[in-house]
Amino acid sequence: MSINNRDFAPVMGIRLGSAAAGIKYPDRADLVVIELPLGTTSAALFTRNAFCAAPVVVARRNLGVRPPHYLLINSGNANAGTGDQGMEDAEACCEGLAEIVDCQASQVLPFSTGVIGEPLPVSRLVDALPQAINSLTEDGWVTAANAIMTTDTVPKLASRQFLVDGMPTTVTGMAKGSGMIRPDMATMLAFIATDAIITPKLLRECLQQAVEPSFNAITVDGDTSTNDACVLVASGMAPTTPISDAKSVAYQKFCTAVAEVCMDLARAIVRDGEGATKLVEILVEEADSSAEAKDVAYTVAHSPLVKTALFAADPNWGRIMAAVGRAGIEDLDIQNVAIWLDDTCVVCNGARAEEYTEAAGQAVMDQSEFVIRIVLGRGEAESRVLTCDLSYDYVRINAEYRT
Amino acid sequence: MSINNRDFAPVMGIRLGSAAAGIKYPDRADLVVIELPLGTTSAALFTRNAFCAAPVVVARRNLGVRPPHYLLINSGNANAGTGDQGMEDAEACCEGLAEIVDCQASQVLPFSTGVIGEPLPVSRLVDALPQAINSLTEDGWVTAANAIMTTDTVPKLASRQFLVDGMPTTVTGMAKGSGMIRPDMATMLAFIATDAIITPKLLRECLQQAVEPSFNAITVDGDTSTNDACVLVASGMAPTTPISDAKSVAYQKFCTAVAEVCMDLARAIVRDGEGATKLVEILVEEADSSAEAKDVAYTVAHSPLVKTALFAADPNWGRIMAAVGRAGIEDLDIQNVAIWLDDTCVVCNGARAEEYTEAAGQAVMDQSEFVIRIVLGRGEAESRVLTCDLSYDYVRINAEYRT
Repeated sequence: MSINNRDFAPVMGIRLGSAAAGIKYPDRADLVVIELPLGTTSAALFTRNAFCAAPVVVARRNLGVRPPHYLLINSGNANAGTGDQGMEDAEACCEGLAEIVDCQASQVLPFSTGVIGEPLPVSRLVDALPQAINSLTEDGWVTAANAIMTTDTVPKLASRQFLVDGMPTTVTGMAKGSGMIRPDMATMLAFIATDAIITPKLLRECLQQAVEPSFNAITVDGDTSTNDACVLVASGMAPTTPISDAKSVAYQKFCTAVAEVCMDLARAIVRDGEGATKLVEILVEEADSSAEAKDVAYTVAHSPLVKTALFAADPNWGRIMAAVGRAGIEDLDIQNVAIWLDDTCVVCNGARAEEYTEAAGQAVMDQSEFVIRIVLGRGEAESRVLTCDLSYDYVRINAEYRT
Repeated sequence: MSINNRDFAPVMGIRLGSAAAGIKYPDRADLVVIELPLGTTSAALFTRNAFCAAPVVVARRNLGVRPPHYLLINSGNANAGTGDQGMEDAEACCEGLAEIVDCQASQVLPFSTGVIGEPLPVSRLVDALPQAINSLTEDGWVTAANAIMTTDTVPKLASRQFLVDGMPTTVTGMAKGSGMIRPDMATMLAFIATDAIITPKLLRECLQQAVEPSFNAITVDGDTSTNDACVLVASGMAPTTPISDAKSVAYQKFCTAVAEVCMDLARAIVRDGEGATKLVEILVEEADSSAEAKDVAYTVAHSPLVKTALFAADPNWGRIMAAVGRAGIEDLDIQNVAIWLDDTCVVCNGARAEEYTEAAGQAVMDQSEFVIRIVLGRGEAESRVLTCDLSYDYVRINAEYRT
């Protein structure tokens, strides 16, 4: 059983509230509180950027102290590059919320996204907390998904439901992200909740598996954010039996649901990539190793010349070939290399395929979604990366942001 | 003694001729023949792109057979990704020239630049050879520098002269390159000539040294071309004594002159980067190793977010910091990191410098040339890379090219 991707199912026990704190813009919801019932199991992955933001440091630390009871998210300001003051500010926000709801500050995980290097307007944020708390509801997902947006143009939500012993379990997630996207170990901000009853160990393993082919395989501009975080929480309120066996059917179904939600959100992020008009999958096959396949996939996915050709819907395969050639693969025998645009073979034996016609390439490139498949002919490893094109709007958005 | 960079000095014995072969556009000079007198010593470096173009394969091979007598260059078509036909075409061009001037085909080195994957129009090219040969002159540099341009907006020429025993030696070079610029071991196309009398070994060593801080330290878009080549030829016709001792003053002066010509041309390429409005030096200091310094410098230099901020003249140092943070340096202690825009300290101890003001940062970014200095506080290695901004025009040029 799977619901429409555009819809979402609330998760039993998980309540979301939003408010307009005026962090960057007036009168725009920019603050979200997510309430996790006591007993909730949590797993989280954070950015590997060495300059990780203050809230990442605090969230990681608090997660080690005790199970989180609240997630506190703001957009408009990343509280990154803010030094000691940033740490104090992140902690002050947690304390502000803890005071109102009467819990420990360490039971709050803070998350921030937005401009880097500006001090967080703590008092405005704390002043808006009561409004967010008063609006807590299991139906708060859409408002929350909107409130965490920065340069995103659409909110990103995904849901899956599956049955265990005839009883439904729900997995629902939201994410934000549009630029500074090249997740490394975790991504932008993604919050996924389930009502499954599951052990912390399995929850963590499930999340790690789910992010690899989804959030960890997408790129908009190759820039890894200082604030990336991906959280999966399980309220344990589904009317089902606990999941504690990694080999059980229930766990497999659960992993599939989480993986699909992550993939839906990851695709939504790339589709909403800053200025993006195309969603393109780069699939590298027959590589000598996964690392090699990934290197080639990312080299092509990041090439500005490939990305501008995608924007122009120009089947300029020479740029793809040149990117493959500079990916640093030792002893690449170009005679064995083939490049496909969907089902059209463009390059064969290292040169233009005889049967290839510009019209066939054009037909593929005119689509809004397609696959660039690169066959290296060296081994059996493969890798796939989702990327988008590089348009005028990417430059406009990023040249104008902050001004 | 150094001449004005905008001027150039002819090199004794080196003659250049140009012609309009109609390779991509009608009535535009797109073919250059450079005649090297017999006895000329040559050194060359080529792209490391695995998909190197047919002319690169042929030039490298011919160079091993016998000393080159002619260089044959065309713009408008790269003869890359053209398979066996491309090899035949490159050889046919060499044969066409050899026949007219009565030399061996292996005494001709072919070079091509332009669109990838289109067959080279050999007969049009060969038909135009007599016109190019008839125009051979020691004063042909400016016309030739124009003829080898593709998306370049200005021709690139540089000269240096120095005295040995009171007698002048000249080093003059030309280059083309504007996009697909991230040279690896050699660069776009650069042809440098001198009338010095010098041994092949010293000439090769001199070229290798000269390209490292110049052509091998620039990037426009991170895309390494399939056709990069850099050639240094010495006609030996200067009225001076031969250079055969690596420790001699004459060799040191020669190396300085070649290095300066390479640096002038490299800067000219970045300044003319596709759509570029800024020339920015990324200087990484106090790294643990040169490789680490280079990784950080290129990560910042390639970051689309940094590059769009440069275009907007926006002192958005958070993006620089985030790029440093994702450069993959193990155990980077951000407390020791400082970032400077020219003489303005922006980040100190891993956070915004106390004395920093937006106005001071803005004043630096408003310039057309400046330095981003990143101090890692880990060691003594450093690296510098020249880059440019990412503008609407980069997208326009590369989305429209080929159409």
